[in-house]
Amino acid sequence: MKNLLYSFVIVLFILPIIGFSSENIVLQTDFGTKDGAVSAMKGVIYSVDKGIIVSDLTHEIPAYDIWEASYRLYQTVSYWPKGTVFVTVIDPGVGTDRRSIVAKSKTGHYFVGPDNGTLTWIEEKFGLEEVREIDLSKHRLASSLQSFTFFGRDVYAYTAAKLASGKIIFEAIGKPLTTPLIKLNYPKVKIENNKIIGTILILDKQYGNVWTNIESQTLKNFGVKAGKKYKVTIYNYDKIVYDEIITFHDTFGNVKKGDNLLYVNSLLNLAIATNQADFASTYHINAGNHWKFIVERV
Amino acid sequence: MKNLLYSFVIVLFILPIIGFSSENIVLQTDFGTKDGAVSAMKGVIYSVDKGIIVSDLTHEIPAYDIWEASYRLYQTVSYWPKGTVFVTVIDPGVGTDRRSIVAKSKTGHYFVGPDNGTLTWIEEKFGLEEVREIDLSKHRLASSLQSFTFFGRDVYAYTAAKLASGKIIFEAIGKPLTTPLIKLNYPKVKIENNKIIGTILILDKQYGNVWTNIESQTLKNFGVKAGKKYKVTIYNYDKIVYDEIITFHDTFGNVKKGDNLLYVNSLLNLAIATNQADFASTYHINAGNHWKFIVERV
Amino acid sequence: MKNLLYSFVIVLFILPIIGFSSENIVLQTDFGTKDGAVSAMKGVIYSVDKGIIVSDLTHEIPAYDIWEASYRLYQTVSYWPKGTVFVTVIDPGVGTDRRSIVAKSKTGHYFVGPDNGTLTWIEEKFGLEEVREIDLSKHRLASSLQSFTFFGRDVYAYTAAKLASGKIIFEAIGKPLTTPLIKLNYPKVKIENNKIIGTILILDKQYGNVWTNIESQTLKNFGVKAGKKYKVTIYNYDKIVYDEIITFHDTFGNVKKGDNLLYVNSLLNLAIATNQADFASTYHINAGNHWKFIVERV
Repeated sequence: MKNLLYSFVIVLFILPIIGFSSENIVLQTDFGTKDGAVSAMKGVIYSVDKGIIVSDLTHEIPAYDIWEASYRLYQTVSYWPKGTVFVTVIDPGVGTDRRSIVAKSKTGHYFVGPDNGTLTWIEEKFGLEEVREIDLSKHRLASSLQSFTFFGRDVYAYTAAKLASGKIIFEAIGKPLTTPLIKLNYPKVKIENNKIIGTILILDKQYGNVWTNIESQTLKNFGVKAGKKYKVTIYNYDKIVYDEIITFHDTFGNVKKGDNLLYVNSLLNLAIATNQADFASTYHINAGNHWKFIVERV
Repeated sequence: MKNLLYSFVIVLFILPIIGFSSENIVLQTDFGTKDGAVSAMKGVIYSVDKGIIVSDLTHEIPAYDIWEASYRLYQTVSYWPKGTVFVTVIDPGVGTDRRSIVAKSKTGHYFVGPDNGTLTWIEEKFGLEEVREIDLSKHRLASSLQSFTFFGRDVYAYTAAKLASGKIIFEAIGKPLTTPLIKLNYPKVKIENNKIIGTILILDKQYGNVWTNIESQTLKNFGVKAGKKYKVTIYNYDKIVYDEIITFHDTFGNVKKGDNLLYVNSLLNLAIATNQADFASTYHINAGNHWKFIVERV
Repeated sequence: MKNLLYSFVIVLFILPIIGFSSENIVLQTDFGTKDGAVSAMKGVIYSVDKGIIVSDLTHEIPAYDIWEASYRLYQTVSYWPKGTVFVTVIDPGVGTDRRSIVAKSKTGHYFVGPDNGTLTWIEEKFGLEEVREIDLSKHRLASSLQSFTFFGRDVYAYTAAKLASGKIIFEAIGKPLTTPLIKLNYPKVKIENNKIIGTILILDKQYGNVWTNIESQTLKNFGVKAGKKYKVTIYNYDKIVYDEIITFHDTFGNVKKGDNLLYVNSLLNLAIATNQADFASTYHINAGNHWKFIVERV
């Protein structure tokens, strides 16, 4: 039995040392996957520790779109184990003196990347426990190309790998921030008499569904019920783009192919769609704060 | 020596328990990779067991295209180790009472997803050993968003992970099906006098090659030989789209750049292509049961 | 202590045997990810050894573009651990008697694929230690479809997996090459009086930046300095496509959104771009030896 115990201890403590640390790193960028940039990041991570499990969130964030990057994190993070390190590199400010940070959320996840608003949704929805600025004098890959720093690869992937592998602790990243993180303007829903006034947060692009910031609790308070009809008006700035009476449904299964419906999406927000077709491109609809989405009792 | 033996036993039995189960899960969806849906599925899997090896078959199945999903499984499955669990979520019937199932094929692979015809090719070509309906009262992720079920993430990825990790056995999924799986209409080849009458199964999209359901054995029986010419007629419903005399070749290497050829593809079916160009888009050809493909002796 | 030692030895030597070899394989193809081809390659690799860590470089190399494939390897390789095996299948000569090879670079990486010029950049920049021709009589997956060989899956992925897992050594691949590898025409930079005459190597497609073959050392010798203006002329064959005076900058951070700049890219080559817009598509610019890029003092 003593041998059993010994071996058990060995397995538990030696494996991480020889490279079976088994923490998750998840990558999100706007780099696409046509070239070698993402692969170089992964090579850097495995060079630190082959036991790290590397996955992709997406590399198809539209170029420089911090808002969408922030939303994709929110959509995904809570399904990953505590301790997962997210590397998120949408970095229009590369080459300026924007800070490089590691944040720890109240959900126990880590986020590595530039300070530019990418954590707006995580901070708003889950809260941040602590944020530290990466000490660039210590945490930077000694590359063969010494005169150039590709932050995604040389700083963010590298620092994430050291953190995930336990080679450094969170406190060794650098000093806590002394001024707040940059935050994007986060739209709020208003209720006026007979109307809910929200905005279009994002498109569910693969299907062309349109997702709003109106939460299911708001709908409940407003008395929205499956099978009932509501007037929906969508504005792009001041211009009406869509204005119809449409039924709220529990599920796509209740709707004929090609018909429109209001429903609650996987993140519990109000959405509008055409069953098995692309609502957003049919009506030329996009997302952002200037896309108002109004639901009215009829 | 006793110590060696002990240690060996430990390594074999403890590793799976602490999370090195090392089974494969392969994901196929029509979700695309622009948003967080696939990543959330992976997070759920690693939350069950970090030792699972998660791969993608494809997430670019055209939206709702069960036929293509079924074919892609057939194209891929036999190259994966026995025990691999395929999660396949092309689910136009989401929200209806379509069944959720796990099938075990005679090749020793598992398939998790909605019952909608996705397993047509696997059943036809490899055979199914047993199919069980997922007991949704037991196998569902207790999500933070309790009122909504995203089946791909909360049921299919979650159940696949429990099965792959050995946390549940196949028999614990739910009861065996009492009525047959849904099957898609599976086209058969006809031989008439001087003609083989088949259909276009699918496009080899990256290169624009056109793959038929005419098998190499049929060609052999018909006497098709490398270097000989055949008349090929392609119909879209009743309309002739292509009608030319063309040579059958063993390999693309025998054909000049830009020339057309008949050949046998990697799944041993007759195909037609232009060497280093896109046959399908040149002639506006697509796939499906209404795309007839006729080979005639000349 | 003896037990500790025993167990340590066991963990180190038994783990690889039961499938925790933990070597990296990186895949590069022009197959895309819409079908099952890449997934079948991965299945073959895991069937050899589940402990191999499989990653993608890219599967979006433009069809048959050996030049770009060669460049992507150069861009990526040095960030991966020594011993990593790259499988690279851009194979317009499939079906001809082109050789199948495994090369070992002086950086300690392996490359598996057809001999067609894909290793031009690796050979030029890092050097090759030895190249062996794959003995196809020994190294070929015994597939269920015995009459057909899909080289990417049945030869290259399979051989790479046996090499990465230690099931065969490099010398067992086949005999050393007796004639040189095929090499692509590799452009050289010329200096004439007041001009640097280079070519456009490749586009940084995600952002539309244009990368040349003019190295930072050449710029230094020529006296190029941040903040100074230079005349840039871009020719497509003999036609001038772009001809303007433009400033060289250390970083995008110094440039207004929408302005053009000259800069040094992540591989230490001269590049031209529009800050947060797509220079290449604005000016209809592409890459290749017939795209001259001339920098002139003003």
